[in-house]
Amino acid sequence: MRPLTLDPDRLFPAEPRAREIARALYAEVAGLPIVSPHGHTDPAWFATDAPFANATELLLAPDHYIFRMLYSQGVPLEALGVPSRAGAPATDPREAWRTFATRYYLFRGTPSRLWLDHVFAEVFGIEVALDGESADLYFDAINEALATPGFRPRALFERFGIEFLATTEGADDPLAHHRAIRASGWRGRVVSTYRPDAVIDAEHEGFRPALERFGDLTGEDVMRWDGYLAAHRRRRADFRALGATATDHGHASARTANLSASESAALFDRIVSGRFDPADAELFRAQMLTEMARMSVEDGMVMQIHPGSFRNHNAALFASHGRDKGADIPARAGFVAELKPMLDVVGNERDLTVILFTLDESTYARELAPLAGHYPCLRLGPAWWFHDSPEGMRRFREMTTETAGFYNTVGFNDDTRAFLSIPARHDVARRVDCAFLARLVAEGRLADWEAAELAEELTVDLVRRAYKLGDGA
Amino acid sequence: MRPLTLDPDRLFPAEPRAREIARALYAEVAGLPIVSPHGHTDPAWFATDAPFANATELLLAPDHYIFRMLYSQGVPLEALGVPSRAGAPATDPREAWRTFATRYYLFRGTPSRLWLDHVFAEVFGIEVALDGESADLYFDAINEALATPGFRPRALFERFGIEFLATTEGADDPLAHHRAIRASGWRGRVVSTYRPDAVIDAEHEGFRPALERFGDLTGEDVMRWDGYLAAHRRRRADFRALGATATDHGHASARTANLSASESAALFDRIVSGRFDPADAELFRAQMLTEMARMSVEDGMVMQIHPGSFRNHNAALFASHGRDKGADIPARAGFVAELKPMLDVVGNERDLTVILFTLDESTYARELAPLAGHYPCLRLGPAWWFHDSPEGMRRFREMTTETAGFYNTVGFNDDTRAFLSIPARHDVARRVDCAFLARLVAEGRLADWEAAELAEELTVDLVRRAYKLGDGA
Amino acid sequence: MRPLTLDPDRLFPAEPRAREIARALYAEVAGLPIVSPHGHTDPAWFATDAPFANATELLLAPDHYIFRMLYSQGVPLEALGVPSRAGAPATDPREAWRTFATRYYLFRGTPSRLWLDHVFAEVFGIEVALDGESADLYFDAINEALATPGFRPRALFERFGIEFLATTEGADDPLAHHRAIRASGWRGRVVSTYRPDAVIDAEHEGFRPALERFGDLTGEDVMRWDGYLAAHRRRRADFRALGATATDHGHASARTANLSASESAALFDRIVSGRFDPADAELFRAQMLTEMARMSVEDGMVMQIHPGSFRNHNAALFASHGRDKGADIPARAGFVAELKPMLDVVGNERDLTVILFTLDESTYARELAPLAGHYPCLRLGPAWWFHDSPEGMRRFREMTTETAGFYNTVGFNDDTRAFLSIPARHDVARRVDCAFLARLVAEGRLADWEAAELAEELTVDLVRRAYKLGDGA
Repeated sequence: MRPLTLDPDRLFPAEPRAREIARALYAEVAGLPIVSPHGHTDPAWFATDAPFANATELLLAPDHYIFRMLYSQGVPLEALGVPSRAGAPATDPREAWRTFATRYYLFRGTPSRLWLDHVFAEVFGIEVALDGESADLYFDAINEALATPGFRPRALFERFGIEFLATTEGADDPLAHHRAIRASGWRGRVVSTYRPDAVIDAEHEGFRPALERFGDLTGEDVMRWDGYLAAHRRRRADFRALGATATDHGHASARTANLSASESAALFDRIVSGRFDPADAELFRAQMLTEMARMSVEDGMVMQIHPGSFRNHNAALFASHGRDKGADIPARAGFVAELKPMLDVVGNERDLTVILFTLDESTYARELAPLAGHYPCLRLGPAWWFHDSPEGMRRFREMTTETAGFYNTVGFNDDTRAFLSIPARHDVARRVDCAFLARLVAEGRLADWEAAELAEELTVDLVRRAYKLGDGA
Repeated sequence: MRPLTLDPDRLFPAEPRAREIARALYAEVAGLPIVSPHGHTDPAWFATDAPFANATELLLAPDHYIFRMLYSQGVPLEALGVPSRAGAPATDPREAWRTFATRYYLFRGTPSRLWLDHVFAEVFGIEVALDGESADLYFDAINEALATPGFRPRALFERFGIEFLATTEGADDPLAHHRAIRASGWRGRVVSTYRPDAVIDAEHEGFRPALERFGDLTGEDVMRWDGYLAAHRRRRADFRALGATATDHGHASARTANLSASESAALFDRIVSGRFDPADAELFRAQMLTEMARMSVEDGMVMQIHPGSFRNHNAALFASHGRDKGADIPARAGFVAELKPMLDVVGNERDLTVILFTLDESTYARELAPLAGHYPCLRLGPAWWFHDSPEGMRRFREMTTETAGFYNTVGFNDDTRAFLSIPARHDVARRVDCAFLARLVAEGRLADWEAAELAEELTVDLVRRAYKLGDGA
Repeated sequence: MRPLTLDPDRLFPAEPRAREIARALYAEVAGLPIVSPHGHTDPAWFATDAPFANATELLLAPDHYIFRMLYSQGVPLEALGVPSRAGAPATDPREAWRTFATRYYLFRGTPSRLWLDHVFAEVFGIEVALDGESADLYFDAINEALATPGFRPRALFERFGIEFLATTEGADDPLAHHRAIRASGWRGRVVSTYRPDAVIDAEHEGFRPALERFGDLTGEDVMRWDGYLAAHRRRRADFRALGATATDHGHASARTANLSASESAALFDRIVSGRFDPADAELFRAQMLTEMARMSVEDGMVMQIHPGSFRNHNAALFASHGRDKGADIPARAGFVAELKPMLDVVGNERDLTVILFTLDESTYARELAPLAGHYPCLRLGPAWWFHDSPEGMRRFREMTTETAGFYNTVGFNDDTRAFLSIPARHDVARRVDCAFLARLVAEGRLADWEAAELAEELTVDLVRRAYKLGDGA
């Protein structure tokens, strides 16, 4: 078997002087706490603190980065233990792990490879590289560790040095796990994020039942425009009461609208009647971004917009396996005309924070940096999803910094449901940021002390300020 | 206070051999004259040679790069002395300067920072870095210098080694300052550029009055298509008589049209009647690019097209403060279908030069380099506005050179109204070009003597030829 | 005269350690056979093995990379010996060569320069650089060499170490040259590629006569939908019988469709009746991609899609000189919505291979890598045409690898009619790939032994597998 080693200088520039600078910058931020303001871990883990099942169910079957690559190379999802609409397949977890292990070479050059090797080496202490030969050794070692108290969710949370972790729940979620976390007396700061997509996107297959639960939870008449808005206000207050500081909106596009109250009410009537066309649905989503922004001005919640994913692109796979199976594909995005209606309403609000994300890198320098470099309410979220990678993060900095600066950005989001990879992901981000800063220093564009200040800003300060988390003390 | 130092090797590659090559290339071009064929300085400065007022009015209040960043971080424009539609605010210039100085760290990583530090160190000889502590020292030192004869506009022009400087005036401008410059006997070569946007863009708020002045100045009946075209010919001749060699066109898109004479006349009638819709206005702008190109074939003026800025995006700010307040945002651009009607008419003209600019970098390799690498009349303008930056210029070279070569580009434009920053901007461009050439040499893609020839081409020769300025002797 | 030297380390990173890694990787792949699965050489060369005429007719007049650059700088095509619709001009080949040689500096920084210098030095053994002074020396030396047996097409094929070479022929081509190659007993593996564009694109000026030849060759009633499809099946079988493994489709866009059989038949009736509009033509091309994919599922042929070129952009030049005269310009492309109808039909087929190319680099990270990193049938073709260049290939790897990995790519295509440049083009690709891999190793993102495996994969293994060429033994 081949050894598994993590290069201590990984992701730093090859050139020795720049590398030396990057190493020094990184040394100062490597040990800072993890602030994770946007992600998709399951709050039940922290509520129940139950042990994780096994390597396959923890690391393989839920990770769409991994199974999409294997699927692209001809491996059926069943062979990996990925659940279908019919439930989890009967696949032996060990066999699934072997299938993965023998194809681990497919991940060369991908961030998944960097994250997984970090998890294997740093979280589990494994010393050989993953391949077909070491598959069983891995499977056994990981399962053995998972059975120990040190690998329970809360213990890992603490070991990882997580200062803050936000999960994401829908507007129709009762937040039972978050209540349980709070009630448990555990000191870990795990809060929710208000993500009302399912009650805003009339084209979502679960729109109707979500709307009904939304009404039940709030006691509002959510089939009328006023009651619907009031229900949002109530749920936002519920989330805030449990520590949430932010909302999140995953729309097909960044389109916003600025309809009059009566136009909005008429549109809403069409939406709830079920007699709407795709243009109505898009317009309603657009209007709701503006409504959410207005409520954020009222209640101070930070607003995140994640637009531009074409969901469930693979029709057959959606039919058999449902959502979130690696078949979401980015689409071309636009922000300039799209955001204008909302910005006409709230653009100049100094106490509002709207964080923009994109899957279309061509908008970084062309649209997002110029917008964020002007409007007081706008900030740029980090390189997202397919771009959460060394090259993706480098391009983000290269294409946004010169127009928006560093201070209109908000630090890193791990945006993950892969809990064990959180330290790995933050480590990659810290290294890539330090590498970028080191290049600026090496090229005489920044003083070394400025780079050191910025490294800390990019790691903890900007994220705490942008998401209104306090100073971390 | 911290020292202010400019790294003599700034913007060169970190790798020692490539850096050595860049340094040698730069040494040969650093002292060459400044040729500035496109910019927005005020000709009144050179006509009257009056001293500049103070640091805030000279460096801060008119520079949209600076105040847009500060505004994005919550600073009101009033606090910076930026005039609104109601006039200049009562803000104390020293207080405005302090507001800026304490936030100078926001510009880390931006070209404004590079330009300003250059101005502070090289133009004013300041030796400490700008921050809250040094704010007053800066304000006093700058104001003191500005009161001396050596900081009058003409003295600075000469000190900066400017060989040629083009300003930009509208079709309705009487060119009084340019006449005064000529009449003064001063040897500085300051000429205008014919920018007829205000009499071409029927959606511009000043269209009607501009058209009237246009008629008054030319004595033509500009409300009829023939008279309108004749008026353009007259004004182009006026500009040429005062040394202008180029026109400039800042349109919302690069769309061109190729209507018949009767279609054009009918469209023009709608435009001047005021009974036009947005499609008419766009079509008229499109047709006028082709008309301007035809006139350039006749009179030899170089034609510049600067498309794709969404002007005045911030509605409230436009209402309170008017144009050019940092709220212009680039939009997605296209050139292939858009330019075809014009190119069908003039594309194969060998003596015509049409210089294309873009704010949408995704068009560099996809559209602009292939177009300029084929059509004899086309050349590529340098990285523009938000892309006039080290990373922006690097991307421009990386994405255009392999298809269009170096010889279909036209050197650097500073495109600025910030007169004192002109040497800084040209210096950044020279350094970035030398760094790019050095990489090609270090990677065995170009001989060193070729790189030396190219460095000089990119600095002075290409711009002189493209803008028909003579050989600079 | 100046010496002509090829830097043995050209295209490797400047940084010494990364360069050392690149050099070691390259040493292992430099001598591997050339596998060329997609190109446009003339099969007549290998059928007749007749000597090439002269330097101008071989290297200059047919190479649109070269004459488009010269044309962009004002050189008439006639002066270069480029044929017009009226036939070859009377231009003296030596004069044409001199015109080129004196302007060879225009190619600085372009891949043509790299390829040509390689051809001059390695194929012809010339030791001085090309310029006006050496023009005649070059012309004479090249012509002299071409008259010798070692420069006949088959001899060069063998000298170049070509393992496999695919040409491209239309659906209406009788494949006489390929039959002759087979009949000759020569062992060189030269096969065709089925490119049915001319019988699919109803807007192509040669559509009608091509369709008639298509009917004649197959004996099918190609004016009826069923007969038309049957004719495609027959011709695909003809091509396969002569060794072809792939089809190729050069459409204006990547749009696909999924019409019912009766809708398709009705559409086809409109197409052959001549009473169709541009939307019909586009829809028919779209539907035919899906039909071709279905046939590929049946017969195993690899399907290549090359979309997004705006052909014959220069109207006057098309009128005088016809197609392929350097006036094809890339247009903005999209794949996500466009490919969905086809992928709904064949997307999950594990034995189908559809290779996607683009001229719009903004789709690499946004659309192509996410699609290829999910769908089993999809692979990414290499950087194409204007992007077949060092910077273009680097961007391709940087923007696709993190999401699609290396194993969803298919090695290099030279895509050329410039036979003598084939080794040069493969050499550039090998060097750039090794440089990219070296950076990953130097930055601790890949082990050295992994990079060595990948270098071989990218050079020969991936292309053999993707195009179903066998193991090369």
